[in-house]
Amino acid sequence: MRLITNALLLAVVGISALGAEDLLLEKAKSYGLEPIPNDIDTLMSIINDKNDPISYPKIELGKKLYFDPRLSKSGLISCNTCHNLALGGADGVSAAIGHKWTINPHHLNSPTVFNSVFNQAQFWDGRSPHLADQAQGPIQADAEMAAPQKLVVDRVTSIPQYVEDFKKAYGANVKITFEKIASVIGVFERTLITPSPYDDFLNGNENALNSKEKAGLDLFMEKGCTACHNGIALGGTMQPFQVASQYKFASLGDFSGDENGMVKTPTLRNIAETAPYFHNGGIWELEEAIQEMGSIQLGIDISDKEAKSIAVFLGSLTGKKSQIIYPVLPPSTKNTPKPSAD
Amino acid sequence: MRLITNALLLAVVGISALGAEDLLLEKAKSYGLEPIPNDIDTLMSIINDKNDPISYPKIELGKKLYFDPRLSKSGLISCNTCHNLALGGADGVSAAIGHKWTINPHHLNSPTVFNSVFNQAQFWDGRSPHLADQAQGPIQADAEMAAPQKLVVDRVTSIPQYVEDFKKAYGANVKITFEKIASVIGVFERTLITPSPYDDFLNGNENALNSKEKAGLDLFMEKGCTACHNGIALGGTMQPFQVASQYKFASLGDFSGDENGMVKTPTLRNIAETAPYFHNGGIWELEEAIQEMGSIQLGIDISDKEAKSIAVFLGSLTGKKSQIIYPVLPPSTKNTPKPSAD
Repeated sequence: MRLITNALLLAVVGISALGAEDLLLEKAKSYGLEPIPNDIDTLMSIINDKNDPISYPKIELGKKLYFDPRLSKSGLISCNTCHNLALGGADGVSAAIGHKWTINPHHLNSPTVFNSVFNQAQFWDGRSPHLADQAQGPIQADAEMAAPQKLVVDRVTSIPQYVEDFKKAYGANVKITFEKIASVIGVFERTLITPSPYDDFLNGNENALNSKEKAGLDLFMEKGCTACHNGIALGGTMQPFQVASQYKFASLGDFSGDENGMVKTPTLRNIAETAPYFHNGGIWELEEAIQEMGSIQLGIDISDKEAKSIAVFLGSLTGKKSQIIYPVLPPSTKNTPKPSAD
Repeated sequence: MRLITNALLLAVVGISALGAEDLLLEKAKSYGLEPIPNDIDTLMSIINDKNDPISYPKIELGKKLYFDPRLSKSGLISCNTCHNLALGGADGVSAAIGHKWTINPHHLNSPTVFNSVFNQAQFWDGRSPHLADQAQGPIQADAEMAAPQKLVVDRVTSIPQYVEDFKKAYGANVKITFEKIASVIGVFERTLITPSPYDDFLNGNENALNSKEKAGLDLFMEKGCTACHNGIALGGTMQPFQVASQYKFASLGDFSGDENGMVKTPTLRNIAETAPYFHNGGIWELEEAIQEMGSIQLGIDISDKEAKSIAVFLGSLTGKKSQIIYPVLPPSTKNTPKPSAD
């Protein structure tokens, strides 16, 4: 329907003025694909959170906390351990491993933190509405960072530089709570966006994608992938899983989605860097993952050649990572609660 | 003896031209304390290794590998996990924890990587002569990164960007061996030096230390600490341990030094940032550690006030960390051996 409307629109504006690239671009938009906006005000209106607006002091503080392993009970696991900014924002292992080497009890794979701000829901079961809330989960989870809220607050408030940083970020009367610690980590995470050649293309630079990438994009749409992988995130919404047939690694772990069996569609941004794939990290090769999605979600066969073409397109979603200065963290004091490996 | 020679020298150059700071500086030198040289050629002559000379492509490659958890069997532990550049180059836990959450079998504490180039020997038992050799140990150790040499080489050579980086660093005919991987990590580590106010003082800036720090430095020398804590590293040589009495946490772990009972004296640089202290991380407070050293090594009582004064001096050894851009690591390929948590 959208295609037809679009075709009509094209007829009105004069088809002869439009090249093949313009047609592909218009088609992509009509299929619900959206770029990361070039315009900073538009971008900010999407990534900002009025409950905790982005500011430089918050980004810097959030970055420190993101990299600080002292937010875990053991003192060894940071947010960055499983969402490693050096490795596409993920950990590259099948299921997350946390405190005491505990493998995620549902055998869940760590999603990338990059562009997670564009997700409509967080966690595989979508139980969290935004990053400020999401960040509270793994810090406390027994199988991840295993730190009770009080321990986290006591660690942070025992370190004078952190107290100073919170004052800079939130004013002299700030009360440092567990929620505030998670929220400022969320502020940092909201800045972790990675514009890619694909965005350049959707923003109007027709040479940003080569002909193979364009062919892959067209096939991606024609096969129906955009039914779930749409929007800025090319994913990030809750969708039914195993629609047409059963996932070949369905038995790996016990995850079955939310109470309605819905699962968060992962973003496809930086997908070439974030193997293994699926909620349980069952598949390691992108082309195999594409074919599996065709089979279980769309009920179609995707040939090797077609999967390769789509994978070439997905490569154009590998985005530019902002330069991150590795933080020098403020040292612990004698009042800082000691780490515990137990 | 050195003091006397020095006093004679001072008499010759004219004592009246020298203030109290000059005297303290001369005294420090006569006690074997040396700054990180200001002069880059002198510095390079100390930190460079003719077997693998420092170059920018090697530093960049070594940095990537230092941060890359894929050098471990699990894919989760990097050099930086235990020698965290955000935390004074160490991990802040009592005994290192590695693969499968294994606590170091001898309950050994991870030493800081910063300024480790100035150590005469590496590891607590001094069994390694230099960093290129040292870096081979933890990668393979079952309780640390647990990766066999072949796995490490297979991982690195499966990633085209790494192969390219090695060619840039060592020439087109480079053979990527386990030893070469460790050596280029060593090149990066040799650049991790942290000049401090103390160095400024020893290099001639008499205002670089305040009066309390100067008093602490004088006491540090008068108490005899420089017997072991001397040279650029203020440590880094093999020394007998428990000379005068038994260490209060001697029963923690089973480490007893090398075959002669000798133990590597830790550097005191950045010591205020690298609690807990001693080979087994038994003591968490710096002043307590100072008093314990007086008791077990020098056979003297160091009062609370004296320990505090020495700790103030040791604070001046907290050095400036070079800005580290967190690397974006090249992605794995389908040929990259998979991580294993077992």
